[in-house]
This record gives sequence, structure tokens and C-alpha cells, in this order.
Amino acid sequence: MATRVDFITSGTITSPQGFHAGATYAGIKKKAEDVLDLGILFSEVPCVAMALFTANRIKAAPVVLCQQRLPTVKASAVVANSGCANACTGEEGLADAVEMADLAAKSIGVSPENVLVASTGVIGQRLPMKLIREGIGQIVLSKDGGHELVRAIMTTDTLAKETAVAVRADEDEFIIGGIAKGSGMIHPDLATLLCFLTTDAAVDIDFLKLALQKAVDVSFNMVSIDGDTSPNDMVLVMANGLAGNEVISPDSREASAFQQGLDQVCVYLAKSIARDGEGASKLIEVTISGASSVDEARLAARTVVSSPLVKAAIHGSDPNWGRIMAAVGRSGAEIVESKIELYLGDICLLKAGKPLPFDRQSAVELLSRSEVPISLQLNQGTAEATAWGCDLSEEYVTINSQYTT
Amino acid sequence: MATRVDFITSGTITSPQGFHAGATYAGIKKKAEDVLDLGILFSEVPCVAMALFTANRIKAAPVVLCQQRLPTVKASAVVANSGCANACTGEEGLADAVEMADLAAKSIGVSPENVLVASTGVIGQRLPMKLIREGIGQIVLSKDGGHELVRAIMTTDTLAKETAVAVRADEDEFIIGGIAKGSGMIHPDLATLLCFLTTDAAVDIDFLKLALQKAVDVSFNMVSIDGDTSPNDMVLVMANGLAGNEVISPDSREASAFQQGLDQVCVYLAKSIARDGEGASKLIEVTISGASSVDEARLAARTVVSSPLVKAAIHGSDPNWGRIMAAVGRSGAEIVESKIELYLGDICLLKAGKPLPFDRQSAVELLSRSEVPISLQLNQGTAEATAWGCDLSEEYVTINSQYTT
Repeated sequence: MATRVDFITSGTITSPQGFHAGATYAGIKKKAEDVLDLGILFSEVPCVAMALFTANRIKAAPVVLCQQRLPTVKASAVVANSGCANACTGEEGLADAVEMADLAAKSIGVSPENVLVASTGVIGQRLPMKLIREGIGQIVLSKDGGHELVRAIMTTDTLAKETAVAVRADEDEFIIGGIAKGSGMIHPDLATLLCFLTTDAAVDIDFLKLALQKAVDVSFNMVSIDGDTSPNDMVLVMANGLAGNEVISPDSREASAFQQGLDQVCVYLAKSIARDGEGASKLIEVTISGASSVDEARLAARTVVSSPLVKAAIHGSDPNWGRIMAAVGRSGAEIVESKIELYLGDICLLKAGKPLPFDRQSAVELLSRSEVPISLQLNQGTAEATAWGCDLSEEYVTINSQYTT
Repeated sequence: MATRVDFITSGTITSPQGFHAGATYAGIKKKAEDVLDLGILFSEVPCVAMALFTANRIKAAPVVLCQQRLPTVKASAVVANSGCANACTGEEGLADAVEMADLAAKSIGVSPENVLVASTGVIGQRLPMKLIREGIGQIVLSKDGGHELVRAIMTTDTLAKETAVAVRADEDEFIIGGIAKGSGMIHPDLATLLCFLTTDAAVDIDFLKLALQKAVDVSFNMVSIDGDTSPNDMVLVMANGLAGNEVISPDSREASAFQQGLDQVCVYLAKSIARDGEGASKLIEVTISGASSVDEARLAARTVVSSPLVKAAIHGSDPNWGRIMAAVGRSGAEIVESKIELYLGDICLLKAGKPLPFDRQSAVELLSRSEVPISLQLNQGTAEATAWGCDLSEEYVTINSQYTT
């Protein structure tokens, strides 16, 4: 039987067997209707766990704590909050993160060192520990709780980002679920603030490490909102093995099926982040083909999708395609101007490095859609890559000029 | 006698002896009151000339032409236009640039290969050669013409950027002048679209090359508006020797005096570009000290000044200083969080990596000024650097979403 990967209707991080979650409003964020700001993810059995963290040299306290605990410790739970990043808070901040894990451990009855912590929000402020102490006791875990947990990690996100897939390969069947929060300060490398992934598949730690890196490389590392990278970025995957499959190692028959499923979840979440970029009204998809290597293709795709001038032109549905060429030219990728082909959807704007006449009205119409596809054929080799981003709107500036005021 | 460098009142590119300039409205840009779009700079005697060009792999036709002609040819004149970049225009575009130089050469009576060309404006459109042929004949050169030429290279610039200094060292006295255009698509390396510098000092080509690189490193390469770099970037310096000083070589007594003057002109123009960034309302000055090397200091300063989140926060006078730390953390510069001091003007926000309580009202007041000084002491070494940029406003997006429509 061939591998099948299917999205699960209303899938979320608690779709895999044995995962429960819940959230509450502790008062860390400003009060608003239906707002949640503190949540817990819990697995009935301890998980093989792996995470990728921010490349920022300023690391938030929860990141420091998770780096200390992973991958040696099996993870049973994650406690997460929004509204305060617990970054640039010194040793006191680290002590707060440790206490947050302790409180969650006590509340759900697991060992403190098996609990991971994640925070997102304003940098440079201490966690309001009094509110967190009170809040944690109010959290009720449930099999449907993924839908609550995802809301508890939102900051300027306008949409909850969650999904799950069922993977069937030979006789085995397992589920992979995930939630993410994004919006501002999104950029490679690690193009998300927070993403938690769960699976009931049985996997070994070496395989999980490889699989996570591969999935992140084609998804979160290919998303750019504004070029900033936060001290809190973290993509975490937890596998509890309750599906009962033979443990997947790098050489297993099921390895590629698992990778396919994980990639699909991560790409879905990454695109959701791009679509919901701060102030965004459009998803931009940039595909580079004919590059001399995958690295070159990724570099070019990410540079085009993060150019403020390209993003602003697309916001205004202005077919000012010279900015796309200027961005690919400064990307550092190997290009030869006279070989490049540039397409907006199926409209060819440039061939062999020479501008072609095009129907301006059709181009404007295409740029006015909610998904704008741009593709460049470099004619240098056979490698390709896709990156996602969003348009740059006046609203992005408005949101970000008043974040703490 | 010590070196003296003094700004000249109403100084411009034609302040040094023997330089003349003029401009006209040829019809390349949209008609508006007092708009100019085509101009010529001319030196009575051929100049030792040197230029630094865009690092973008997509190079505009005039850049390709100048790279062919410099530094072997002595330069007598530059012909420049705004409204059309003559980039991504293939072989026809290069032929247009050659013809533009020929037309200017004929009009002012010099040899065509001694004429350089520069263009700025929309990418991917052919130069309207009919308008340029007609326009060049209308240009009248004068000793005051620098004030016209600077307006002829403006695109979205709202202010003309021009200055000149008189340098006195021992018995020698010479003048250095310059004009620049900036606004959008400004980023290291080569943080300007166009800058022309002139001097009546006598210099040799080796010295001029060194001096230009040094001056650009502390000025245009330390300015960032939006992270984009254009295919047309060019900083050109022309020296005609009419001041009659002994030719300055790298070991000359006057070398440092010349450098001081050139740095001053370039820093003045670079700051003017930052202050007049598209949609900008404030100049941001970021100084990094205590870095382990000048390269590290520059990297950190440029990353902070180009962070969209920092720029947007300053636009809103929001003292959300965590974003400054996040930017320095992702800059790649060597830092230790627990050693950093962060200042807004003279308000210390963070010391030894720990947030200090500060008077929010004073911080907001400081952020509301037209010049916002941010400084970071890394306590890693003794190197320092300063970078300039501007806030990110809703107007930046509006300008750039409607550039060709």
C-alpha cells in the first residue's frame, strides 16, 4: 500500500492519541473577549522530544531552560504563555521559567524536569508570576483542548493556526498534529515564534532530529514577514508512541511517510503564518527554479519574499516587477541576468533577461488576488525552492508603532 | 598649521574650482512644478576619477558602462537622469546609455569616452531616447548649476542633498563638494542610489581609491532605509587638480586632511539620505561601542538601524526597547547578553544585561524628537561604529505601493 497523508477535519495538536491540552485567561495580556494567555499541553506517556531554537544570541529564559532539558529528558508537558516573552530578564527570568514549569508539573502530576516552557510577547519585562500561579490551577485539560491552547499562544495573530494529518503507510497508521503562532518578527532562521508538534507515532530520537530539521527547512525557514527574528523562537516536536507502530529510525520503511506527514503539517502552519502576517492582506508565494543548488534557490526565494519594496508594490497591486529583479540580484544567489525568466502567475514579464510587453490590466488583476504567485526560472541548474510571505501594509506599521503603548 | 575643515554656505558639487553643471526637464518624470530630470556635470579639465558600484548582480546599463570606462579613462563629465533606471533593459539599454554619453559629449565638446552616465528611477523600462536627445541640448552649464543638477537626480526625495567643505592644511587649500539622492531602496553595501563628489585637489588614483572606500565605509555603508539595494547604486568622485596643491598620494602629508574633508561630506550626505528616507519623520542614530572589532560594531549598528520592528516602534515613540536587544542579538555580532548596556539618549534602559526601571515619559519625549540617539555598550572590546536610519511610517508603504501606478 502506498503512503496516504490526509488532513483531519478540525485537526489540532491534541488529535494524536494520548495528548490533552487546556488554557485559561490569567491576566497577562490585556483583557478582551475570548482571550486566553496561559495553557498546557500534556501527553499521557512521556515523549521522545526534539526542538529547534532561535539563532538570536539574545535567548529568552524559556529557551535557555528548554535547551538545558532537551533532548536528554523525555517530555511530558509544555506550559506556554503569551503577553510576556520573559526575554532580557536575567537570572530572575530564568528562575521564573523554572517556577512556571514546577507549577505546571505539580498541577498535572508529572516530574518538573519533564516539563518544557515557552513564552511570547513583550521583551524586557518580568513574568507576572502571581497571575501565573493563580492561572495554572484553573487550566482544565481535555482531548479537544488543542483549540484552546492555540489561542493562548496568540499575540497579534488574527487567526488560530492549527492542523493535523493522518498518515497511513502499509499496516501502520499514525497522526501528526501541530499549532503555531506567528505574525510579526518572523524570519529565517527559524521563521516562527512558537510551534508545537505532536505525534502518536513511535520514533527514535535520531530520526526525529533529522525529520524536524528537514521539515523546518522547507516550511518555517522559508517564511518571512519582516526580517526580524525573536529571542523566543522555538519549534518543538513530541512523539509518544501510542500508535503502536514499529519505532521509526532513519532507515525505516515508514521514515519517508512520517517525513511527508510532518512536512505537510509544517508547510500548512508556515503558510498560515505568512497569510496572517501583521497587517497582511495577501499571501505571496515565490518559487525559484533552475537554480544551481537548493541553497541558492532558497536564498533567492527568501530574499524576494522579504523585500520591503516588493511587498509594498504587491500591497498596492502595482506590477513594478523591476523590484523583484533587484531583490534576486542582491540575494547573493548565482544568477546571470540574460538567462532569467520572470513570471507573475502565468504572465511572462521577462525572458532571457529582456522585458516582454504584458497586459497591465491582467497583471493588476492577478496582484489583487489573496494569493500572489511569483516564479523565476534562473536557467542555471535544476534545484528549486518555494518561500512564502505577505504584503507590507500601512497597518503593519500602525500595529508595530503602538505595541507597548 | 592644523587641518581645518569648514562647511561652505550653500556649498554644492560645483563649489570646487572648474566644475560646472546644469539641468533641464526633458519629460522623463511626470510633470510637476520645478521638476528637473536630466542634467550634466562638467569639469574644465579631465579628472582623476574613481567610483564604487552596486553589489547587486543585476546591474543597470549605466553602471555597466561606467565600470567599463573607469578607472582607466579620465572623466570630463557625467550625464544623469531620473525617472527611468535603464536597468533590466538588455543590450538595447546599454546602447541607450552609450548614446546618452555620446549626446552629452557632443553637446559640451569633449570626447565621448570621457563621459560617464548615471540613471535612477523605474526598473525594466527603456530610456525615452527621443526626450533625452531633445533635452540634452537645452542644458545650460553654470558655476551655480550644482543646485540644479541635484534636483535632476531626485526621485521620491523630498529635499535636495548637497554640500561642500573647504579644507585647509598647511599652505594648501582645496574644496570638496557633493550631491546625492537617496530615499527608498537604500541599504549597505552601497547605501545610496547616486552620489557624485568633486574636488579641485590634485590626487593620485591610488590615493583616491583608498580615500573613497574609507569615506563610504563610515557614511553610505552605514545608512539603511529599507534593506533593498538597487541595480543603479554608484558613488563617484572626480578630482581635477585645479587647486594646485602637490598631488596627494597615500603617504602625503595632506592625505589625512583630504580624508577628513571627504568623510565629512559623505557623512553629511548619508545622514541627509537617512533623514529623508521615504515617509520618514525622524533620523535614528545607532552607536555601538565596546565591540571586539570595527566590523562587528558596524554589523550590530546596521542591524539595529534596519530592523522594521525597531523603526516602527520609534515611529510611534514607543519605548519598546526589547526590539533593539532582539535586533542586536540576531545581528551575528559577538555579544554576551549579561555584559550589554543600552541607552536611549542618556537614559540607561539595561545594564549588565538586566532591565533598569526608567521614566517612561522621558523616554517617550526623547523618542518624539526629530533625531533619536540609541547607543549600546557591548563591553567586549574597544571598537565602535555609528549607523543612521529612519523610522518606518505608514507613508513609506503608501509611497511604495503606488510607485508605477
